[in-house]
Order: sequence, then C-alpha cells, then structure tokens
Amino acid sequence: MTRLVENAAGRLVPTEINGVEAVPFKGVGKHQPTGRKAAAPIRACQDYPADGHKLTADIKSALVNADLRDGMTISTHHHLRNGDFVANAVFAAAAELGVKDLRWFPSASFPCHEPQIAHLESGVLHHIEGSMNGPLGDYCTRGKMRGMAVLRSHGGRYQAVQDGDVHIDVAVIAAPTADPFGNATGDRGPTACGLLGFALADSEYADHVIVVTDNLVEFPCIPWQIQGNNVDQVVVMDSIGDASKIVSGTTQITKSPDRLLIAELTARFCDEVGIVQDGFSFQAGAGGTALSFALFLRDMMRERSIKARFVRGGSTQYLVDMLEEGLTDYILDGQTFDLEGVRSMRENAGHVNTSPFTSYNWHGKGNFASLLDVTVLGATEVDVNFNANVVTHSDGRLLHGIGGWQNCLASKCTILPIPSFRDRIPVLVDQVTTLCGPGELIDVIVTERGIAINPQRLDLRDAVRGSSLPIRPLAEIKAEVEEICGGAAAAAELGEKVVAAIKWVDGTVIDCVRVVRG
Amino acid sequence: MTRLVENAAGRLVPTEINGVEAVPFKGVGKHQPTGRKAAAPIRACQDYPADGHKLTADIKSALVNADLRDGMTISTHHHLRNGDFVANAVFAAAAELGVKDLRWFPSASFPCHEPQIAHLESGVLHHIEGSMNGPLGDYCTRGKMRGMAVLRSHGGRYQAVQDGDVHIDVAVIAAPTADPFGNATGDRGPTACGLLGFALADSEYADHVIVVTDNLVEFPCIPWQIQGNNVDQVVVMDSIGDASKIVSGTTQITKSPDRLLIAELTARFCDEVGIVQDGFSFQAGAGGTALSFALFLRDMMRERSIKARFVRGGSTQYLVDMLEEGLTDYILDGQTFDLEGVRSMRENAGHVNTSPFTSYNWHGKGNFASLLDVTVLGATEVDVNFNANVVTHSDGRLLHGIGGWQNCLASKCTILPIPSFRDRIPVLVDQVTTLCGPGELIDVIVTERGIAINPQRLDLRDAVRGSSLPIRPLAEIKAEVEEICGGAAAAAELGEKVVAAIKWVDGTVIDCVRVVRG
Repeated sequence: MTRLVENAAGRLVPTEINGVEAVPFKGVGKHQPTGRKAAAPIRACQDYPADGHKLTADIKSALVNADLRDGMTISTHHHLRNGDFVANAVFAAAAELGVKDLRWFPSASFPCHEPQIAHLESGVLHHIEGSMNGPLGDYCTRGKMRGMAVLRSHGGRYQAVQDGDVHIDVAVIAAPTADPFGNATGDRGPTACGLLGFALADSEYADHVIVVTDNLVEFPCIPWQIQGNNVDQVVVMDSIGDASKIVSGTTQITKSPDRLLIAELTARFCDEVGIVQDGFSFQAGAGGTALSFALFLRDMMRERSIKARFVRGGSTQYLVDMLEEGLTDYILDGQTFDLEGVRSMRENAGHVNTSPFTSYNWHGKGNFASLLDVTVLGATEVDVNFNANVVTHSDGRLLHGIGGWQNCLASKCTILPIPSFRDRIPVLVDQVTTLCGPGELIDVIVTERGIAINPQRLDLRDAVRGSSLPIRPLAEIKAEVEEICGGAAAAAELGEKVVAAIKWVDGTVIDCVRVVRG
Repeated sequence: MTRLVENAAGRLVPTEINGVEAVPFKGVGKHQPTGRKAAAPIRACQDYPADGHKLTADIKSALVNADLRDGMTISTHHHLRNGDFVANAVFAAAAELGVKDLRWFPSASFPCHEPQIAHLESGVLHHIEGSMNGPLGDYCTRGKMRGMAVLRSHGGRYQAVQDGDVHIDVAVIAAPTADPFGNATGDRGPTACGLLGFALADSEYADHVIVVTDNLVEFPCIPWQIQGNNVDQVVVMDSIGDASKIVSGTTQITKSPDRLLIAELTARFCDEVGIVQDGFSFQAGAGGTALSFALFLRDMMRERSIKARFVRGGSTQYLVDMLEEGLTDYILDGQTFDLEGVRSMRENAGHVNTSPFTSYNWHGKGNFASLLDVTVLGATEVDVNFNANVVTHSDGRLLHGIGGWQNCLASKCTILPIPSFRDRIPVLVDQVTTLCGPGELIDVIVTERGIAINPQRLDLRDAVRGSSLPIRPLAEIKAEVEEICGGAAAAAELGEKVVAAIKWVDGTVIDCVRVVRG
C-alpha cells in the first residue's frame, strides 16, 4: 500500500512513486532545489559519420542501435496531437524486439495512442508518465496500469528532465522536416505542426536521440528548431502523421450565448482593472471561450488604437490576424493550433517559437509565464477557495492533461472564464476532485452568473469598485448554481488505490488520483 | 619545473596545467571521452523577480551579487573584438573590489585588452586562458604571467566548458541589445556585432551569468541569441564598445599580385578536383586572400550557373552579395566581420547564425565543420609534413589565437593558401615552432610558387593528373624559398619554461609554447 502524507495543500499524497522518493508539495515557491542539473553523456565526433549522414533504415533498427533494453524510458511528443503515427510505431517496434517494462514519457498522449493499452497489457509498457487525454487516462483511472502515472505541466516536464527527476534513455522526435544530420523543424513539410518545443528537453538531456521524419531535406534544415548536434540517428517514415488531425484548419470561436457572455465579461473585466493598455500582454488558449475573449479584446484594441507588446498562444488564425494587423509586436508561441499559425510561424519574424524552457520551467532564472499581464485559462472544477482542477472530471476519471495550465498561473492576473455548470453538474464545488492549481494563484473566476475575485486580490476588488460588472462572492454564485442543478456535485466514487500523481511546477506532489470504482 | 612527456605528435607537452592533470594528444580521433557533460546549478523562479526585471545598477554591484571571490573564473567574449569596453570594465571593478587570483577565460582577447596586464601584475588576475592577440600574447611569451596560458580553438572552448574542463563562475556577456529579462542579441543596436555564439556555452554552463548592454529594449528582445532564462543579472552601460573597431565597414580583398595568384590557384584547384558543383559548400575567412578566393569562386559559379547549398563565414559583404544574388541557399555564419554581414543577418532568413556548439564542438554528435566540401585557412608556418602553426611567429612570440582554425581542419578538403615567405622569412619550415594542426588533416598548400598536395590524398593527386596547375612537392617549393631567403628560417631563441599550452579540439594537449629569451 502506498504511504500517504498530507501536503501543504491539505492533500494526501504518496511519498514514493514507482519506487522513487517523492517530495510532497510545500506551498507555492517554498521548495528550494539544490544541486546541479542533469547532463547528457559526452559524445565525440569520431563516433558519428563525418559526412553528417545519420540515417537509419527504420525505427526498429534505430531502437536496436540505441541499445534499447528492458525497463528503459522512451519519450515522445505531442506536436502531431491526435494525428501522430510515430509513438505507436515506436512501441510496435519495441514489442517486436521483445523489450519489456518500458516507461513511456510522452509530453502528452491522445486518443490515437490507444494501441499502447495492448502494450501495457502485454508487459512491453510498465506505465505512462505524461498527460493522457481520453482512453489511456480512462484506462489508468480504472486501476489497470502496473505503475503509477505521473502528470506534469509542460514546464514541470522540462523541470523533471532538467533536474534529473526523469532520465530519458531514448527520445524519439517526430519531425515534419529534417536533414540527415538531424536538424529538424515543425514549421514546414506535409505534416507541418508549427514548433517542436516540447522535444527540446529530450534533445538536450536524453542519452540517445532519434529524429523521425517524412520530409528529408538536404543539410541544412533551416530553421533548426531541434539541433542535429544533439541527434544520434535519423529515420525516414512514409508518413509521420495524419495532417488532418494534427492541426485544425479552422479553430472555432464559441457560438454558445453563455460562453460568449463569459468571454465578453472577461474582456470587460480586463479593461476595467486597467490591463488593456499600450504595451500590455495576454495569453489565451485555443478553446472557444478563450478565442472569443481574444476577439473582444481585439475589438477594444482596434477601437482605441492599443497595441500589445506580445501575446502568447497556442497560436490560431485569430492571433495571427492580430499580429498581421499590427495589434501586437509579437506572438510568443508555445504550440501551433491551426494552419494559419503554422504559416505565420514560417513567414512572420514577429511570430516567435518558444519552448517550455523559456516559457514555463520553474527551475530556471525566471520564465515568461510570470511576465503576462493577464492569462485566461479553463478548468473542470473550481472550489470555494479558488482551487482548481483540470485533469479529472467530477466522476473521478482522468481525461485531460495539465498542459501549460499550472505554469500559466504565475501570470500577474490569472482568470478562469468557465461555465458555472456543465450537463447539470456544477463546476463550482466544495472541494475539487483533484487539486491542480492552488487558489492563491487564481485571481478571478468569470461565469455566466457573475465574476468572483479572489479575496486575496484586494487591488483587483478596489479597481472594479462601482463598476457595472456583476462582481459577486464565489460562494454566492455556487449556491445559485446548486439550486439550479438540484444540489452540489456528487463526490466521485473512488477506491483507495492511487493511480496517478499530480506534480506541481517545482516537482513536488500536489495531489494524486484514486482509482474509479466499478 | 613542469613535467613534460612526448605526445602522439612527437611534441613535449606538460602533464599538468595550473595544477590540473592534462591529457597529452593521442592522435586525431583517438581520445575517447567518458562520463557526462558539466551542468549549471538548478535555480528557481522564486529567487528571481516575477516581473522579469533583472537590472543591476553597475558591473561592480553585479559582481558583488554574483559573490565574486578570490580564485574564481570570469569569462568574456570577443564579439566586440578590438572595440570591446566590457572586459576592461569587469576587471577594473574586480580590482576595486580587492579580488585576487582570478582566471580570465575570454573567447579571445585583443590589443584593446592591454589594461589587463596591470591586473596580472597586481595580482587581480592569475592568468588568461584564451586566445591572446597582440600585447597580452607578447606578455605571456615573455614568461611574465604567473599561471600557464591555455589556448583553445572556438570548438575546443565549447568542449572545455561542456565537459567541465573549465568551470566558469561568472560569465559576463556584452550584448549590443538586450531586454531586462536578459534575452540578448548582437544583430542590432549602436554597437551591433552580428551574433553572440561565442557566449553560448558560458550562458548555458556558468554558475552566474551577467548580460551587459548599452541598448536596453522592452521584453521580448527578438531574436534572443542569448536566452534570458540563463541570465541572472542585466547591467546597462553607456557604451559597451567602440563601434568603429567592432566591425570594419569594408573588408578588403588583397591587392598583392602574389596573394591574388594564390587565391586564383586555390579556386582553380577546387574547380579541377571537382569541388565546384551544384549544391557544394565552402568556408573562407575574412583575410584578403580568402576573400579573393571567394570572389574567384563566385565568378566561376556565376559563369556556370552553379549554386552552393551553403557557405560558412565569418560573413562579409562578399558572402552577403553571393547570398542576395542567389549563388548560395544559406550563409551559416560563425562570426560577422563587417556591417553588411550584420545587416544581412538581421534581414535575410537565409543568413543563419551558428555557434561553436553547432559548428565546431568535437564532443558533439558530429559538427558542421566536417560537412564542408572545402575550407580555406591561413597559417604562420607549415612544415614539410604539412603540420601547421597559427599562434606563434618564427621568433616564438605568441601573437594570434587559434580561432576556429583547428576545428575547420575536419572539412573534406582543407587548403592553406599561404605565401611561401613573409619579410624574407620562409613560411615553409622543417618543423613548425608550435604545432596547432596535424599534417594528416591538411590536404593542400597553395603558394605563389606552386601547389603541394598532401601525399596521403591520393584521390586529389589523381584528380589533377595532367592538369596545367603547378603541382609540386612541398619539399621542392621549400628548397626554392630557402634559396631566395638565404637559408632556412632561424629557430626561435626559446627558454625552457612553458608559458602556454595548446589544446587540440578534443581537450588533449597538442603542443606548448616556451618562453622567448631576452
């Protein structure tokens, strides 16, 4: 039985994860790291082809060359999202080689990665450490995985690799374009996905790095988002992904009147507290509400000739329009969500690709997330103390990853524009099923029934005094929602077994996920 | 007395340098590194300002904040070349603080850095590890420095930092443009110098990193050649350098008929052995002969509609013209030598900045240098076995750095176009004063009296069989030169004391420099 202790957030968390000691969450900014970063082995040019041709015939041969053995860790990345062919090919090859007990360390997994369930069943895979969107998350919460899952934010993943918490034996990087030396880019090629920032840590720290591409170009591949000097082998596949599932040609704004209202209230709030001014910055994702928020903001900016210094994406056609219209100097892009984003990254010098190192790594000398004037995020649940959940549903099932969400909480003003209930289940709860973000970092909750400001942000309360905005206590909104929904959200029916640990941005354990009963 | 042993090149070299064990050169590609790379300390965002403002009032305060102490290593870089103000300011501040016995680890030093002689005399500096162009080199060869100098190539410097051979306590990076977070670029600003690649290793591996700029811009500084996530402090100075001495507005081709002949012969040789064809690559520096060679090549390319895949600089107006004329897809630039190079780097997507990591680091998974079809380099001396010297003159004085010279020897065809004598002193000698590059890596010597092909390159000999080019044995050219000059070059008058060690690209010691008598 896993030993649990209560952490600084009042959550019971394991002190050991898959046989390795784990540090319970100590409070925001309270964990002081020591020592030096991890480091890759020293290699030498005499052991690589002088002509720069590192091509290997196929993934299976590449894994053999990488000396893949039982119990090793293989990493992959989610740039190709639900269209990825590479991770499945890697574990199919590992299975053919008869290797067992691998740890899969993806930056995120998607429904397309369901074939890994068979490898978990057969023993090829021991467990997954990384976001599990959909079926793999469901599998995990049913208690079927041998090891404990570990969920990290994008920044937390970089931190874990950098600090040596996770040692990657073999990194496999799917690359829309690459040269034989291993220089690679995501911004062009038949399966272009934009950037490859999630693979940066892996390319720097893994013992062995394999680039897999379906678009081999002559040296040099420019830009070199991944540097060939970190790459051991290059494999060419017919196709690394289904382009139609990598990026959506059009990302949609919300059509729901409630969501539109939430988006508008969020933009108005930003305006009234003085955020929307020349040289400001904002981050908003690619969800319908966030996109609509960005459009309301855009209209304000146009009207008053306000120019942002930078906006952070996930980039979409809407952010690209703002850049090309001159409403922002820069897009600092962490993930490209549509084809316009990919095009813009190729064409606009002001559309800059970033990585979890620059944007989110808590164990760096600062990061970009804390420089944002306002960041707009989602949540599956929020409790009365502004604590929020993004990974589990109220039934306890682990269906989403953390993404950059935890990292973004460092912004100067973090707003969660969320519906107060979904499918007649309140989103506002007494206690979140899984704690992903401490309430002290969440400044504002915007719902269709009103805006709640974190009592700790007296400055924001003062800024909207006398405003016509529907500012209300969170508890009051929650009570109203419960009345509509016929009571509070039912607690999930959970067993004792811990199936997943949720890491905080500093590598400590902020919460864990229990097995779902029945 | 320093203990010396004979290395694989037959040179006597010290087995200990400044109290640390040194590995004698074992032969090209024979030294097998082990272990893992060095690594910087793990830092945490809570210890840096959340708003990203890392500004410190002045260099002295920054050194205090960096906890500078006796015996530490401070690094600086030579992007501002002979116009640099920053290194002098750093050691003046260190002297004011009363710190002693520092090791200065510049990527190169120039005549403008002569003030450091006073700090060597007073004890603030213990010794210099890095190229010493001019007065500091002269000072060193007169045996006046307490410690032993260590000269490394650009790639060797990266290797030494990466492998932990040299631990940098405080890196100071002069940056023509930077933001308060520490993102920095060299391609713009009143003291623009192009790129900042020589500071990359320092930014990644030093315990503490200080950026010094005279052009502070709002976050984000784009491009971020140096990433603020690696930077601890930012200091603003009135001026970091004398722009007129950083880059020369015009780099000159040679006017000497002999040098022009050498350049032409070199280009013709490249053509006759089949190097000049579509998709080829070449590297040539900014010296007059190298530039002239590039122009002869350009004319051939124009005439026959040949396009290079990439050329490597030091970039100059001539390479930029070739890029903009469409004669090459890319310039992979390691150092910007004139203002046109700086402009092009800012404006042309095909003008790509590189670093010693990508281009030259021998302890990487390959590097760019070995991909070059032909590389054209200089030398102060060449001996009958094609061994070459680039750091000392025949009088034994250490007046030049290694630069990327050793690293470039890895190219597919390395040519030294050199005059056979200078000031009536033969350049062709029985034995080089200082061995910097083993003859087995030097393929061709082009002089005004003929072209000598390394006997090991039977393929090149075969390729020019029947050519009208003046192909001659090196010994024959040497004999002719000695007749003209009235005998062989006189051996330098040297004492026993070793004043400097010359590292090979893999960190082993290939030769050493003795004190100059009298």
